[in-house]
Amino acid sequence: MSNPIRIVHIGLGPLGRMLGPYLTEKDHLRVVAAVDVDPEKAGLNLGAAYNLERRLDVAIEGSLDAEMMENADVAVVTTVSDLRALLPTLERVIDGGLSVISTCEELAYPWDAEPELARRVDDLARANRVSVLGTGVNPGFLMDFLPVATTAVCRIVDSILIERIQDASRRRLPFRRKIGAGLSVEAFQERVRSRQIRHVGLTQSMQMVASRLGWRLDRTEDIVEPVVARTEVRGKDWSVQAGRATGVNQTGRGFVDDREVLTLVFRATVGETQPRDRIRVIGTPAVDLAIAGGVNGDVATCSIVSNAIPVIHRAPPGLRTMVDVAPISAF
Amino acid sequence: MSNPIRIVHIGLGPLGRMLGPYLTEKDHLRVVAAVDVDPEKAGLNLGAAYNLERRLDVAIEGSLDAEMMENADVAVVTTVSDLRALLPTLERVIDGGLSVISTCEELAYPWDAEPELARRVDDLARANRVSVLGTGVNPGFLMDFLPVATTAVCRIVDSILIERIQDASRRRLPFRRKIGAGLSVEAFQERVRSRQIRHVGLTQSMQMVASRLGWRLDRTEDIVEPVVARTEVRGKDWSVQAGRATGVNQTGRGFVDDREVLTLVFRATVGETQPRDRIRVIGTPAVDLAIAGGVNGDVATCSIVSNAIPVIHRAPPGLRTMVDVAPISAF
Repeated sequence: MSNPIRIVHIGLGPLGRMLGPYLTEKDHLRVVAAVDVDPEKAGLNLGAAYNLERRLDVAIEGSLDAEMMENADVAVVTTVSDLRALLPTLERVIDGGLSVISTCEELAYPWDAEPELARRVDDLARANRVSVLGTGVNPGFLMDFLPVATTAVCRIVDSILIERIQDASRRRLPFRRKIGAGLSVEAFQERVRSRQIRHVGLTQSMQMVASRLGWRLDRTEDIVEPVVARTEVRGKDWSVQAGRATGVNQTGRGFVDDREVLTLVFRATVGETQPRDRIRVIGTPAVDLAIAGGVNGDVATCSIVSNAIPVIHRAPPGLRTMVDVAPISAF
Repeated sequence: MSNPIRIVHIGLGPLGRMLGPYLTEKDHLRVVAAVDVDPEKAGLNLGAAYNLERRLDVAIEGSLDAEMMENADVAVVTTVSDLRALLPTLERVIDGGLSVISTCEELAYPWDAEPELARRVDDLARANRVSVLGTGVNPGFLMDFLPVATTAVCRIVDSILIERIQDASRRRLPFRRKIGAGLSVEAFQERVRSRQIRHVGLTQSMQMVASRLGWRLDRTEDIVEPVVARTEVRGKDWSVQAGRATGVNQTGRGFVDDREVLTLVFRATVGETQPRDRIRVIGTPAVDLAIAGGVNGDVATCSIVSNAIPVIHRAPPGLRTMVDVAPISAF
């Protein structure tokens, strides 16, 4: 085994802390520095932030510095979903000579939504001979990489239907809250308007798929709706009355010449009886691929990010996407 | 659209001819020359060899020549399964400056079985700035690329079970013959000994998976057995009596420290009631991925080969495998 890949971990919010054990349990990875803007976290031992039972030889810093970057290879950035908000950090670490893996949803495929920013990040990464990837389970894997890779066996692809249907019944309260379970339809709609209920990334996934299939999308839609209980739905210590929301249904649609070529359904509700991840390629041949029960999103995102590190560490320089690098795998 | 990728197609046997329509129906591909050693095919119009209804501007040649290679970008080689038998052609086209995609099963992952040959091909490809890939549905996709890519969502992988179970009932006579359907157990075993019944590539698939998961396989097995009819199995114009073979079951097993970490089951029989392609990752989390009904092998191989051409045309130089290039997709 060669030397471990040295990681600077930026962003120790809920996802960042969940990711900690994944980054610290493999011999080929080593977290050498950690940064968070929250002053309350400054100085905290990283082992505690990661909820490990052991201390790590790293204390959380309030900001990046040059020495940190000199002694590292890759930055793992788990901060924001918004590419513009990510940009200062991104430019700083690329300039510092680090490759980057981020869970920023808008970084997963920024070439259509933010072509100038994408070009700027790509140029800077090439100039510094580093690679940059936005990834996670979704966007990054289930609704873009996996459908694209599935079409390898197809002679012709007419359209693709992708479903990610999750049962939130056994998830913890914060997840049930996040999907609006139990809200009245009016309260749900209000949270949609204020963007509190919204999964970021369907459009990025559609654009990523289209880029590899040679489709020029004329139009995309991204619609968020409540799923309304017809009868009362009961869990262990909660219930949702008939007429209230059991959760969220978000649909992405991509059109070429007014023909719907991409349909992405992302649904998370309490009382969902058939949770699944499913990709149906309508084409020659048709392909119907399913992952029984679906994949737990938090675990999958943490796995993908940590599994991506060796691939991005040796990828060609530039802004990469999940569909233009070698497949990520467990290692 | 930029200029089409110019293809020299070498090997116009059954698979090569089946591939023809795939290579000639896309604007971004153009077959500019075709070669076959069979003297009976020399001079034949390629459109006829491909069973197209139109003539092509290409006549089949008996051998490669320098001019052919100067005016092309990629060689598609559909000749043999054996890497040593492929080598003279491979070296010739690489020297001629062509990238190569071949259905040669042993080329899919030659690094363990033939490390010296692999190194030689890799060195030659790098020296000539071209890329070389062995691919097809299996080896190449179902039992190696797809399982590797699936493990992206896993924190830990303990073992992987891969099944490709096919129903041959509706396949044509040559396929039913190839899998030994209708033979006595003795006759079947004789054909296994003479290697007439044998799928090439399970070992390559296992080695490809292991290479990406960081597993060092101490030992592999590849066992070919008849599936024996318990009761008579009847098709439209055929039947298999009880006690005779309905087809073949081939099992690949890969071991690390005497622990079976890879199990590949490739079964094709008449009367199979649950045809499927299925990948079960035993790990954290467990993943159970299935393609309903399975993928037709001939169509999938032709699709993968033609879909791989743009990817290999722009891949980094060297001997590549399906798990170290960007995912192949329909285009």
